[in-house]
Amino acid sequence: MNGAESLIRTLVAGGVEVCFANPGTSEMHLVAALDQVTPDHADQMRCVLGLFEGVVTGAADGYARMVEKPACTLLHLGPGFSNGLANLHNASRAQIPMVNLIGQHPASHLRYDTPLASDVEAFARPYSRWLRTSQKASETGRDAADAIVAARTQPGQIATLIVPADVAWSEGGAVPAIPPVPRAPLPSAENIEHAAAMLRSGVRTALLLSGDTLYGKGLAAAGRIAAATGAKLLAPYPFARLERGAGVPVAERIHYPLEQAVDQLREFRQLILVGASAPVAYFAYPDKSSVLTQPECGIFTLARPGEDYVGAVESLEDALSSRGKSSSGKSPSGASPSGTSVVAAKAERASLPSGEITLQGIAGSVGATLPENAIVCDESMTSGRGLMAATRGAPPHDWLACTGGSIGIAMPQAVGAAVACPDRRVLCLTADGSGMYTLQAIWTMARENLNVTTVVFANRVYGVLKREFSGLKLGEPGPRALSLFEIGRPDLDWVSLAKGMGVPATRPTTVEAFQQALRNGFEGEGPSLIQVDV
Amino acid sequence: MNGAESLIRTLVAGGVEVCFANPGTSEMHLVAALDQVTPDHADQMRCVLGLFEGVVTGAADGYARMVEKPACTLLHLGPGFSNGLANLHNASRAQIPMVNLIGQHPASHLRYDTPLASDVEAFARPYSRWLRTSQKASETGRDAADAIVAARTQPGQIATLIVPADVAWSEGGAVPAIPPVPRAPLPSAENIEHAAAMLRSGVRTALLLSGDTLYGKGLAAAGRIAAATGAKLLAPYPFARLERGAGVPVAERIHYPLEQAVDQLREFRQLILVGASAPVAYFAYPDKSSVLTQPECGIFTLARPGEDYVGAVESLEDALSSRGKSSSGKSPSGASPSGTSVVAAKAERASLPSGEITLQGIAGSVGATLPENAIVCDESMTSGRGLMAATRGAPPHDWLACTGGSIGIAMPQAVGAAVACPDRRVLCLTADGSGMYTLQAIWTMARENLNVTTVVFANRVYGVLKREFSGLKLGEPGPRALSLFEIGRPDLDWVSLAKGMGVPATRPTTVEAFQQALRNGFEGEGPSLIQVDV
Repeated sequence: MNGAESLIRTLVAGGVEVCFANPGTSEMHLVAALDQVTPDHADQMRCVLGLFEGVVTGAADGYARMVEKPACTLLHLGPGFSNGLANLHNASRAQIPMVNLIGQHPASHLRYDTPLASDVEAFARPYSRWLRTSQKASETGRDAADAIVAARTQPGQIATLIVPADVAWSEGGAVPAIPPVPRAPLPSAENIEHAAAMLRSGVRTALLLSGDTLYGKGLAAAGRIAAATGAKLLAPYPFARLERGAGVPVAERIHYPLEQAVDQLREFRQLILVGASAPVAYFAYPDKSSVLTQPECGIFTLARPGEDYVGAVESLEDALSSRGKSSSGKSPSGASPSGTSVVAAKAERASLPSGEITLQGIAGSVGATLPENAIVCDESMTSGRGLMAATRGAPPHDWLACTGGSIGIAMPQAVGAAVACPDRRVLCLTADGSGMYTLQAIWTMARENLNVTTVVFANRVYGVLKREFSGLKLGEPGPRALSLFEIGRPDLDWVSLAKGMGVPATRPTTVEAFQQALRNGFEGEGPSLIQVDV
Repeated sequence: MNGAESLIRTLVAGGVEVCFANPGTSEMHLVAALDQVTPDHADQMRCVLGLFEGVVTGAADGYARMVEKPACTLLHLGPGFSNGLANLHNASRAQIPMVNLIGQHPASHLRYDTPLASDVEAFARPYSRWLRTSQKASETGRDAADAIVAARTQPGQIATLIVPADVAWSEGGAVPAIPPVPRAPLPSAENIEHAAAMLRSGVRTALLLSGDTLYGKGLAAAGRIAAATGAKLLAPYPFARLERGAGVPVAERIHYPLEQAVDQLREFRQLILVGASAPVAYFAYPDKSSVLTQPECGIFTLARPGEDYVGAVESLEDALSSRGKSSSGKSPSGASPSGTSVVAAKAERASLPSGEITLQGIAGSVGATLPENAIVCDESMTSGRGLMAATRGAPPHDWLACTGGSIGIAMPQAVGAAVACPDRRVLCLTADGSGMYTLQAIWTMARENLNVTTVVFANRVYGVLKREFSGLKLGEPGPRALSLFEIGRPDLDWVSLAKGMGVPATRPTTVEAFQQALRNGFEGEGPSLIQVDV
């Protein structure tokens, strides 16, 4: 068994089931090894090709957000990996597990400084919580096992393994046992009791959740705490995954615009952080503080990255319902506070709007048609502000956001989410500006026949930039500034772009036609795209 | 004057005339400053928007290759800059001048580790020969001046200036005088005499040229040396720019496949390097040496990066024609060796092929129609092997190659070359695999109405990978490998993709129709695209 085969077999043994890939010449032995897992693992290690590496890393991120375990990526040397960095930035902020495999030349070849030689480790270091260059074939299996464990260590980390071609092709590989993933520790009992005391104090308090406390049993427990104590649940603006809809406890997203966020947080005198950082503005502005909370707001970290977020929230619930009880278990059902409805969203479909295309009409249509259990990948930028309000009472669904502010993630993320959850419908909300960074994802949707309905808000402008320019009081944009803000001349025609990559697309001109296109997308097989001119 | 304005004014004063850009929120003051050079420089600092950063850096590279001076890029924080890295890899290998401007958060904002915070310097360091983060507005003009000087230092370097937003918006900026660019030194007289002695020795010798000795007066001087001494002129496979065609001295490109290159170089017992590295294979293979020359071939470096390549070749010519003469001037015309025709290409148009589309027919058609003074940006990959032979005797033209092996450069490069040389025609040769990495460049061609004719060779496969897999004796590719090599299912429809970005396109099915489409492109105004299914 060569190093490459030991690597892939170890990944399969470690539960890595999908490889999002854009390989190159130096990764040919790894590609060959992908087929060597057959036939004993015929249904394992699904390979999904992206025609650009930003699609690959964004898809691995979307996948991990939904299944809470790593996919692997397979990328070509420094330049190929570099193309994936922008979405790795988002993935690192999302705190999700991912295993990157990057090819490298043998040291004997690198010393000639050949055309594709580069310092792969230098590019990989900033976003990789675990980074190693495999040194010999006999160690590659162990390297892969260590990468899996690193990736799966709470709250989820990016692990990058660089594989020189000679390590991949040399004999001597072995498949080791996968070491257990270290269990994330609970916060100290003192921390939990301190948070409980804050919640009992009667002072206006919010819990700022993150990671796996924004869905599933973590959010359910937080919802019960909120119902019992009157605390508010908040989600960071750049959350990774948020469960929402009818009957789901509401974690209110912190606003993006600085002033709105400050207003939103003004009432709180106490803020309890669960995995999240203290809320700050996206960007800096002259003469403004980056901090969104009031100076008199006490901020307390209940759980920090590496600790068990869900366990922390459940322990907090325990501590609140029964002083002095062990904080290790779940609250007994009898002790669950009633009144969950106080903080859960009411089932309430938006009524079907009609008429000309407006942002409100689009948002209402999404709210009225979103299928139960949908996954929404949202990068609709300035055009999408009304969408979360309009879907608040829709059937339960998951919402995935751009966690790192690096635009060009929604379509790749939708690919990954759809691969992860073939039984769920994915709604991808993007825009003409953000969509263009990684439009190659449309091809992968077609190749894999994914049930993704993509809506492209086409407003022919980098709306964020125009708004920020104005907000900075820089006057009317001059001709050069306008040429950098406006992305019309020519207007992007997404129906043709989608057709060029094998995805059927429409461009409705009324809200009714938009609704019909949405329904067709949600009920049909495979991907579709809808351009809405706004 | 704030820091941003001092920066842009300094760039304009330093002769930087074009800004290829994809800015973000943190660069708004820089964007505003771009318009402040008006009205006294109304025709200066042309801003060219790319909808993806790989277009921006690739265009700046193509521009610099043609005008031998830097454009600036304007990029958004770490993630935006990262998207430009793959083509910066190519640019760094091309040894061209470029000034990158990257926004950064103020230190007061970075300390909160906000969503878009990243270590921009870490990503910029590997390809930047000069790198600085501007510290205050009063120094930003000087930083820009230093960046220009660094970029223009021979043979051309990537200079990267990181500009924190508060440095850009603070008052106190000043526009300094631009220091002179240090003159590149000639190689030592001993080196020149040593090379001359090698050429006089009668041993079979080649000159491996690079940089600015592959066109213009450098290539002309090398051609006279070759004619006088019988030495052969070679170009690296990954050359930056090669002048060729009727009457131009022939610098033969070293082949890409390892075995072919070894055969090509087998006859030489001496190799003189002018700026180039000793020839090595692109990739490493089991049990094969990376070195392409024979062990008994003596390799001598006449000029290394930082030295004056053209001066070195001219001095070598002097030394050959008149021993002991000063090596600082040009060879007097009377001393020029005759017999230039021995090494110059004969004027010889390919005859017009006809019939079904074949690679040979495509290559012949290009050879038969290429306009005088054209610029060819070539990333046609496995489909384009016959193109250089077919254009050998066409009217003089420049050929730009992918210097770093990071594919996805041809279309961005064509944008930059067309911006640099509005009076010349650009032929962009790309492929369905390579083209997809940076297809957003098509939009910029339309936005700027550039005279670029793009030919996309659509073979529905990463042909290089399939060939290398086979060459490595890995057997028949299995289903997973095939799914990563084949890029059909669905086939990319470049006519629709181009239409989606505002560029008219055709898909001829005969060679005659292909020729007509080429002629239409060469004679019409603005961009066009031709998909050929091969």
